[in-house]
Amino acid sequence: MSPPPSTVPFHERWFDDYPVGEVAEFGDHAVTAEEIVEFARRYDPQPFHVDEQAARGSIYGGLIASGWMTASCAMRMMVDHYVSPRSSLGSPGLDELRWLQPVRAGDRLRMRVTVLESRVSRSRPDRGLLRFHWEVLRQDGQVVLSMTGWGLYARRPAA
Amino acid sequence: MSPPPSTVPFHERWFDDYPVGEVAEFGDHAVTAEEIVEFARRYDPQPFHVDEQAARGSIYGGLIASGWMTASCAMRMMVDHYVSPRSSLGSPGLDELRWLQPVRAGDRLRMRVTVLESRVSRSRPDRGLLRFHWEVLRQDGQVVLSMTGWGLYARRPAA
Repeated sequence: MSPPPSTVPFHERWFDDYPVGEVAEFGDHAVTAEEIVEFARRYDPQPFHVDEQAARGSIYGGLIASGWMTASCAMRMMVDHYVSPRSSLGSPGLDELRWLQPVRAGDRLRMRVTVLESRVSRSRPDRGLLRFHWEVLRQDGQVVLSMTGWGLYARRPAA
Repeated sequence: MSPPPSTVPFHERWFDDYPVGEVAEFGDHAVTAEEIVEFARRYDPQPFHVDEQAARGSIYGGLIASGWMTASCAMRMMVDHYVSPRSSLGSPGLDELRWLQPVRAGDRLRMRVTVLESRVSRSRPDRGLLRFHWEVLRQDGQVVLSMTGWGLYARRPAA
């Protein structure tokens, strides 16, 4: 039983405006071979990420995106549609991340994000931690990446 | 009690050549403001990653790297010094990742990697999973990122 989603637009949200149980879907990222190779040449130059021919001979049968690129694309969709620039203070980390399916040129990715938990800071009561579940979905509905992680947010200032 | 490190150069290793307990240190990545901003404009355009002035007014007091960039820089050091191109088959995921300290322009990063666990696949005995602990260290010895994750590797073929 999800609560009704918050009616506060994401860019005006504070910690208090991310209700536990809320599920949001958003984003549309078209993956290209150029982005796969460009990202991987700089950050993850393994054969199946940078070399089309080597990739064909690999267990993946073709070029696949670096998992760090998929996570980074997810982050971009989060910033464009979900993370409030007014209150986001960064992230202390992730509890689990799974790369479930290879991501290939031509795939279109979107996000489904669930607020799992909400915790006001004891030491800094003007801040709180939110625990999120991310799912990155492919055009066919398959989840290619799932992740549970934390975000630090500012609370709504007293009026 | 760490075992003696493997004498097999990293680019010739198979699954079997990553001994549990082995600790390796390598890499030297100089972080620049240009890289921080370029990465973040594309993948994580939050104010404290892309806007020097906004960053000065944030809780970080200045520009900091996206955590996904720090992880990606770590991956690059892994590929350059540690992940065998002969046997690496990608990664199913991470069990935990912590961004412990902000990373800023002028920082120099290096890696310390420990092999935590080694597990031959039951369904595919020509492959195995290795569990690694990554630590990304700053020039002052502080750990800025720690991570526990999995790598899928091919086993040494029978002679």
